[in-house]
Amino acid sequence: MRLHDGGRAPNPRRVRIFLAEKGLALPLVPVDMTKHEHRTESFRALNPYRGIPVLELDDGTAISESVAICRYIEELHPEPPLFGVGALERARVEMWNRRIEFGLYTAVQAVFRHSHPGGAWLEARQVPEWAELNKPRVIEHLSLLDAQLALHPHVAGERYSIADITALVAVDFMRINRTAIPDDLKHLLRWKAAVSARASASA
Amino acid sequence: MRLHDGGRAPNPRRVRIFLAEKGLALPLVPVDMTKHEHRTESFRALNPYRGIPVLELDDGTAISESVAICRYIEELHPEPPLFGVGALERARVEMWNRRIEFGLYTAVQAVFRHSHPGGAWLEARQVPEWAELNKPRVIEHLSLLDAQLALHPHVAGERYSIADITALVAVDFMRINRTAIPDDLKHLLRWKAAVSARASASA
Repeated sequence: MRLHDGGRAPNPRRVRIFLAEKGLALPLVPVDMTKHEHRTESFRALNPYRGIPVLELDDGTAISESVAICRYIEELHPEPPLFGVGALERARVEMWNRRIEFGLYTAVQAVFRHSHPGGAWLEARQVPEWAELNKPRVIEHLSLLDAQLALHPHVAGERYSIADITALVAVDFMRINRTAIPDDLKHLLRWKAAVSARASASA
Repeated sequence: MRLHDGGRAPNPRRVRIFLAEKGLALPLVPVDMTKHEHRTESFRALNPYRGIPVLELDDGTAISESVAICRYIEELHPEPPLFGVGALERARVEMWNRRIEFGLYTAVQAVFRHSHPGGAWLEARQVPEWAELNKPRVIEHLSLLDAQLALHPHVAGERYSIADITALVAVDFMRINRTAIPDDLKHLLRWKAAVSARASASA
């Protein structure tokens, strides 16, 4: 089993943090997106959707989509549980992971891809007005997350989960847009300091 | 347990199809989005992210995000399995469900929200250029799906799954944009006829 990895991009980092939390080390195959290595014919055979990372099993089976990779790892290595324990907690982890992905993460990505010079090559063309529409959404989603973290230590509740990993990756991704967490979001700042201090955060 | 439902919108339909495939009938609480009923204070107490549908448990616990609701239902009612059986099949269902959501579904939604008069109220303002950028993506994602359906009867492989439900909802959502499946995508057309003929499709 080996992981086709993409260096500093947020989704590959998400899977590396997940593996680090599981105490697992997989062989990494570097994929340099800036050299379009994810668009080669050989890579398309692994993932016709061209996204990274991709988990390649020993028989050549390829699993892409970061959360699908993480779920597969969770089934093979259930401890520590990162998708929740029991039907209700698992539903909450899924709910929060999706709220972060379709909310904060997607908004940060839109700002990057449509207003940052370094994001231009990822799109057919940049639509600066789309970036502008997403800038206030980033702040709105940070506030929603702060409200949740006022009530719970972690994004999905009492336990560290994949929702914390997704949120950390999204928040750190904001740096490239020079977006900072507003000072008044104290709960979010407290959470960020705590999850960033875990050994996995440097993965 | 009851479902706060949203009529014709695609995500509420996704959960209703899922329930129909499970042979379950839940009490539905209608939420009229066109009257902004999902933005009232009482609805925000159920879901601060304001999306529908929301599953409300008997003790008042609220689960939102369609796929989180479906996973919770799957845990309570495992048959027939709609998230796959075994680690690898479950990973494939997750992978394909996400490919459809972040690919086809998101592109169709962007076209609707940013170019259709009926989508204007869902956004702070419409960005027609963003809709234009997404129109060719819809066709690209239909082709990727056709290629998968050339090899397998269903979106995630041999078994009908939530990935088929998400894909059907996305394809039917195209109608409002007057986008049709191109005639040469025979496998996609064959699949669409088959999944549309299931009793659940009218849910």
